[in-house]
Amino acid sequence: MEIRKDILQEQNKKQIQDLEDDFSRVAEKLTKKGVNIQGLLQRLQDFQVAIPSWALGAGGTRFGRFGFYGEPTSLEEKIDDIGILHTLTKTAGAVSLHIPWDIPNDYAAIKEKAKDHGIIFDAVNSNTFQDQSNAQLSYRHGSLSSMDKEVRQMAVQHNNDVVDIGEKLGSKSLTVWLADGTNFPGQRDFQSSLLNTEDSLKKIYGHMPDDWKLFIEYKPYEPNFYSTVIQDWGTSFMLANACGDRAYTLVDLGHHLPNTNIEQIVATLMLKGKLGGFHFNDSKYGDDDLTVGSIKPYSLFLIFNELVNGMERNKQNPELAWMIDASHNIKDPLEDLLQSLEAIQESYAKAMLIDQESLSEAQSKGDVVQCQEILQDAFRTDVRPLLAKARVDLGGAVNPLKTYRAMEVRNKLIAERGKHTVATGL
Amino acid sequence: MEIRKDILQEQNKKQIQDLEDDFSRVAEKLTKKGVNIQGLLQRLQDFQVAIPSWALGAGGTRFGRFGFYGEPTSLEEKIDDIGILHTLTKTAGAVSLHIPWDIPNDYAAIKEKAKDHGIIFDAVNSNTFQDQSNAQLSYRHGSLSSMDKEVRQMAVQHNNDVVDIGEKLGSKSLTVWLADGTNFPGQRDFQSSLLNTEDSLKKIYGHMPDDWKLFIEYKPYEPNFYSTVIQDWGTSFMLANACGDRAYTLVDLGHHLPNTNIEQIVATLMLKGKLGGFHFNDSKYGDDDLTVGSIKPYSLFLIFNELVNGMERNKQNPELAWMIDASHNIKDPLEDLLQSLEAIQESYAKAMLIDQESLSEAQSKGDVVQCQEILQDAFRTDVRPLLAKARVDLGGAVNPLKTYRAMEVRNKLIAERGKHTVATGL
Amino acid sequence: MEIRKDILQEQNKKQIQDLEDDFSRVAEKLTKKGVNIQGLLQRLQDFQVAIPSWALGAGGTRFGRFGFYGEPTSLEEKIDDIGILHTLTKTAGAVSLHIPWDIPNDYAAIKEKAKDHGIIFDAVNSNTFQDQSNAQLSYRHGSLSSMDKEVRQMAVQHNNDVVDIGEKLGSKSLTVWLADGTNFPGQRDFQSSLLNTEDSLKKIYGHMPDDWKLFIEYKPYEPNFYSTVIQDWGTSFMLANACGDRAYTLVDLGHHLPNTNIEQIVATLMLKGKLGGFHFNDSKYGDDDLTVGSIKPYSLFLIFNELVNGMERNKQNPELAWMIDASHNIKDPLEDLLQSLEAIQESYAKAMLIDQESLSEAQSKGDVVQCQEILQDAFRTDVRPLLAKARVDLGGAVNPLKTYRAMEVRNKLIAERGKHTVATGL
Amino acid sequence: MEIRKDILQEQNKKQIQDLEDDFSRVAEKLTKKGVNIQGLLQRLQDFQVAIPSWALGAGGTRFGRFGFYGEPTSLEEKIDDIGILHTLTKTAGAVSLHIPWDIPNDYAAIKEKAKDHGIIFDAVNSNTFQDQSNAQLSYRHGSLSSMDKEVRQMAVQHNNDVVDIGEKLGSKSLTVWLADGTNFPGQRDFQSSLLNTEDSLKKIYGHMPDDWKLFIEYKPYEPNFYSTVIQDWGTSFMLANACGDRAYTLVDLGHHLPNTNIEQIVATLMLKGKLGGFHFNDSKYGDDDLTVGSIKPYSLFLIFNELVNGMERNKQNPELAWMIDASHNIKDPLEDLLQSLEAIQESYAKAMLIDQESLSEAQSKGDVVQCQEILQDAFRTDVRPLLAKARVDLGGAVNPLKTYRAMEVRNKLIAERGKHTVATGL
Repeated sequence: MEIRKDILQEQNKKQIQDLEDDFSRVAEKLTKKGVNIQGLLQRLQDFQVAIPSWALGAGGTRFGRFGFYGEPTSLEEKIDDIGILHTLTKTAGAVSLHIPWDIPNDYAAIKEKAKDHGIIFDAVNSNTFQDQSNAQLSYRHGSLSSMDKEVRQMAVQHNNDVVDIGEKLGSKSLTVWLADGTNFPGQRDFQSSLLNTEDSLKKIYGHMPDDWKLFIEYKPYEPNFYSTVIQDWGTSFMLANACGDRAYTLVDLGHHLPNTNIEQIVATLMLKGKLGGFHFNDSKYGDDDLTVGSIKPYSLFLIFNELVNGMERNKQNPELAWMIDASHNIKDPLEDLLQSLEAIQESYAKAMLIDQESLSEAQSKGDVVQCQEILQDAFRTDVRPLLAKARVDLGGAVNPLKTYRAMEVRNKLIAERGKHTVATGL
Repeated sequence: MEIRKDILQEQNKKQIQDLEDDFSRVAEKLTKKGVNIQGLLQRLQDFQVAIPSWALGAGGTRFGRFGFYGEPTSLEEKIDDIGILHTLTKTAGAVSLHIPWDIPNDYAAIKEKAKDHGIIFDAVNSNTFQDQSNAQLSYRHGSLSSMDKEVRQMAVQHNNDVVDIGEKLGSKSLTVWLADGTNFPGQRDFQSSLLNTEDSLKKIYGHMPDDWKLFIEYKPYEPNFYSTVIQDWGTSFMLANACGDRAYTLVDLGHHLPNTNIEQIVATLMLKGKLGGFHFNDSKYGDDDLTVGSIKPYSLFLIFNELVNGMERNKQNPELAWMIDASHNIKDPLEDLLQSLEAIQESYAKAMLIDQESLSEAQSKGDVVQCQEILQDAFRTDVRPLLAKARVDLGGAVNPLKTYRAMEVRNKLIAERGKHTVATGL
Repeated sequence: MEIRKDILQEQNKKQIQDLEDDFSRVAEKLTKKGVNIQGLLQRLQDFQVAIPSWALGAGGTRFGRFGFYGEPTSLEEKIDDIGILHTLTKTAGAVSLHIPWDIPNDYAAIKEKAKDHGIIFDAVNSNTFQDQSNAQLSYRHGSLSSMDKEVRQMAVQHNNDVVDIGEKLGSKSLTVWLADGTNFPGQRDFQSSLLNTEDSLKKIYGHMPDDWKLFIEYKPYEPNFYSTVIQDWGTSFMLANACGDRAYTLVDLGHHLPNTNIEQIVATLMLKGKLGGFHFNDSKYGDDDLTVGSIKPYSLFLIFNELVNGMERNKQNPELAWMIDASHNIKDPLEDLLQSLEAIQESYAKAMLIDQESLSEAQSKGDVVQCQEILQDAFRTDVRPLLAKARVDLGGAVNPLKTYRAMEVRNKLIAERGKHTVATGL
Repeated sequence: MEIRKDILQEQNKKQIQDLEDDFSRVAEKLTKKGVNIQGLLQRLQDFQVAIPSWALGAGGTRFGRFGFYGEPTSLEEKIDDIGILHTLTKTAGAVSLHIPWDIPNDYAAIKEKAKDHGIIFDAVNSNTFQDQSNAQLSYRHGSLSSMDKEVRQMAVQHNNDVVDIGEKLGSKSLTVWLADGTNFPGQRDFQSSLLNTEDSLKKIYGHMPDDWKLFIEYKPYEPNFYSTVIQDWGTSFMLANACGDRAYTLVDLGHHLPNTNIEQIVATLMLKGKLGGFHFNDSKYGDDDLTVGSIKPYSLFLIFNELVNGMERNKQNPELAWMIDASHNIKDPLEDLLQSLEAIQESYAKAMLIDQESLSEAQSKGDVVQCQEILQDAFRTDVRPLLAKARVDLGGAVNPLKTYRAMEVRNKLIAERGKHTVATGL
């Protein structure tokens, strides 16, 4: 199943005049305000978000899983699914592999397929939160942090293997999400766990090629419910500093305690040149992994404000690795991802509309009311015509979701793959 | 595998003199303070907590599950496991069945087995959060609250079937935990969902025998991450009132938003005669389902203070159904339950030590400092000799966990059942 | 200080052409989608929000207060301030009095002044969280819930006095925010406190004229930090039911535990015909009392979705009393209120844009993706031209905040009143 | 008012025999388990907690304050109050001054008075969260972080002045709690605020004598409700590292987001040699500043476990500065502090009872059940006889609170000072 470009263009035709009208209207208004519309479109077009290989099927909870139809069952099919997203949106030009769930059988063929879709291989992800069926030792009591040296070695080796696999595909970074932690007070010694983790991460860092980056995620809880070894950005930052210049903190929006000011963390990390990557999703309670922008779109906008600022001002910070890390428990995974991609672009566009010069001036005068006006003026602007324009100019769909439905993509996938296929490695 | 009483007594012998010394010491001190020790022991002995049939195996999270060895794979084996707990502790004299995971094959045999262990059948639990493999319709979009009449009928019928099964075993109550809810704003209409739920619950209520009680659980989130139909005690209470006199709210300790004052909810429900049951566990972040008393033992004590008070003062409230609802992700399930049972008895005993008369007096004088002193005096008392004495007098173990380990119960279960057995119905 | 209408119109003149252009554009697009623009404008114009008499000065925290300049020091001046807001926005046509801070000296004069400004007297508010300097007894250990009968009588009498004052001004409702609670476990008996509260509220209810309504607020914590007598909507709802048909629950957005689904509470209360009033503000951590819409505008929109729905469908529910209850710690209070009024109208307008028919259809089909699309389509629409149009047609300002600044209102107030005036009764 | 030692001893006489009985019983049991009782008593006696000079009067909230009677109104009287606490408990041998609320008039006299009471001068505290009446500039828009260079200079100068005052009294450390932050998104630039703060702290650090330490507090919110410049331990740690070897993080128990694992933060900071001080209190919702141990005593115990461990293992970490930072809104401040001091000693004693060797062994074997048993065995032990014994051997009261009441201290203070005195500087 591939999106045929002629049919896509046919769909676009019906909507293109409305889009052009809307776009010229908003472009005119924004230009008057001093916005460089072409520059903004260019930046929207340059912004590519990786889709993780595990996100093309239905997710679930500990209480079960309601499967979806036509899920991809091989890495090839997963990359095809991302190809569909990218063809429609022109913003999903990367895949982030999960090992060992998605180890390529034929590297050359996989690279070829990805290239055909215009997809590059972004950060690779290791898995030490789950015992594989053939495992000699268990991660039950931790992996990189384990008090058992052999378990640590096994976990380090696995990460090294992941790097090697990524190297063959053209990836340039490794993301370590360390689920290690404890369920009960006293279960493990905090200091030893931290020291072990630092030691293991340094070994992995040492194994990486010189042009690779290491991304260290943090998370306060789940799947452990008393403590997590890398529980917050402070711990991740400390470990990244210990590893070296090419080790960075990775922020996942869902990995925070209630009410955390995430945008401030982003600003701090970029100032220090230590923000490496970003995982998008949304949540109301915990790491709910919902569609990006579905719960707290204003928070996302505020975070993008810091990202846009940081990309401009903090040259000490590298280019970021962007990825969607959501779980599709109830929606068609591809539709869910289309909504997430739209929400990301929307927030990015709105953040670029913030009049930073006026904002700085208002801040320096202590004009709190005006600061809020400036932010809200950007947020209240309807930027959908800008997103569509940026997309269409690259050959994407005016309205990706509508086109996806009009083309009956899911039905075709079911026809190809069958109904009760399962994508998950869990 | 059964606990041989002669070996148990042999284990006790080594510890009995120390226990008698400790007991007489604490009994003397408490008697001086006006505590009726015999009455307290009697109440401890009368306090029986149900073990759910799904809690004898290892639990897991959405990120996987580390299995435990020698898990029971049949209802018979599960009841045997509870028998082990009851023999050791004398406080686990009930089982709470989950349907359809644990439907008896031979009712007479199962009843006989339970009777042999001194175990009664407490509340039965239905399951509409998961699609069974042979299901005609899916609960993906809700069950008792579904907008689809046929799905609602199927869910009501399932609950009625559960009642019928329970009736055959001697159960007298049905617990409904309704996972229905939504993951996204706008996904479903709140008011229709609530009305549908009320209607469904009334049908189930109508089907129950006249001496049965209906327990309605509430929970703010998980497995749905935007809304839950019965999200709080207020909604459960409203539905219970709508159903009738024998419908009650059930409180699960883990089903609350951060910082909720649970003891106040307990007090309110008992005042209104509407607290039907109680599910014990502990948690730090959400519905973590950890060992009772492992995280917030003082909160448990404060809740027991209200329970003890209510059992004394609120004759309008029925006797409560007690159950442990924890998930054993990392510990031997039986050891975990032994620790939970001990923590429950400890909190109950300490709550009974509160000098209610002095407390009332201090409250009426606004002597806040003294109120705290009275509560803390009870909490700081080491009541372990009381618990052991109550247990031993009924033939239980001085120290159930030590005895369990000394008798190498788990190894024997593995020998009997094999290593890689799986108990869960998920 | 009054807003001179000729100057206001002069200000408008500069912006009116742009507004008309923008309005006709959005009106055209929305009309195509089936929106009744005139009806929508009418409803926006009918929507009036009360300003509380205590909100015209700077607020503070327990760590102090940074005063603002030119604060009103008399009830007359406070009503003048509201007059300024109403002239500019045409949506602040009511005042909500706090007693005893703002007891009128001359009722006829005050009524006359309010009438001149087009302001009515909405719900009156009592205060039993603070001891007045001439108080015979103290509320230190509670008021309506106190274990001291005389204190309860004093608190009831105060509320009755507030009703009598309101009656003279044309108010038709009393709002009771009961700060009663405890700081420590055991400090007071939950059940007695609740029973006392119910008894006190019934007395107040009995004193009210037959056409009055009683609004009962709830709040989980602050100023008490262990428990609050009316801690949640369930308790308020129970008490309202006990009082009678004209007793209702009042929702204040800031009075909830972290992550509470407030829109669901709104839906439930309206279904039951028991939502009486609504206090607007915004918050990130607790009862932060920030500018409406400044932190979580999408949540506000979701709540308005339920309010709009309920006003349409739930004829059993009375018309609601709307009020802004924010604290202006850092902004000019009048500018802060202008921003809040704008945010309220914005959310209301966007909620009215939701295509309820399509939403119902998508819900009944379980089309979760489409449900989200429909909500987000409304939210993403830039409705500012609609708000301005509704306002201008009634004689208000195109841009109230800009006009306020252009007219240098604050400077004039300082000139009239002096710099270091203090409005607060705390 | 001073505690006469002969009367104290008279009070003790009535209880001493019971204490000796209880003590010898518990000492015997613990000795059998391998506990070094004399060493434990010695460590309890060495443990001294500072009382802040602002904590001797009633606290309040933004909704007002219920004053207490006989509050001290001068620094001399405040030190007398601490003298009462220290005489009774032998654990309150330090005072922590707040400047400018408690600037000494006569340094020699104040030092003499403190010496007479056996009280030393611990860390001094600066105040830049409040404008003093004679202030030239305002901290409304920040102090050490301000975008206004002159305001920053004023704030730095104030801190330097505080150091100079402390130097004259024998203090050896400065605690900076920086309330700086924002109420609204966009109000200030995060990166500039952080850079300014670092710069200001370095200046203060540079001003301190060579044997002084700088303690940097963190807090997520309040009195600002959108962001705080030093929002978490990670930020404080980063700033402390930037300042130098004698700059440390200070942990206040109430300054965390919901559900934070504080004990893990303590362990991390001690491992890095960067935990400088500790502020005790307790809370259920936010920075509630309640009596230590009144809400979550098990959490306090877990934190003390890390502290005891760290004091033993982490020689890289300096001796800690301990202080109680609670607000007495409803209790007699001295009684409240007596309860806090008891709770601190209790947790410390219980933490010292943990069998660290067995715990390490259980941890290394992955015996999670046994780890919990070891911790709970210590926590469940009634250590009150140990605390009393440690106290009495130094001349303190068997039961400080009972003695305080028996001696009618508060009445005597009222007689001396009058009823409606006010201690607070707010």
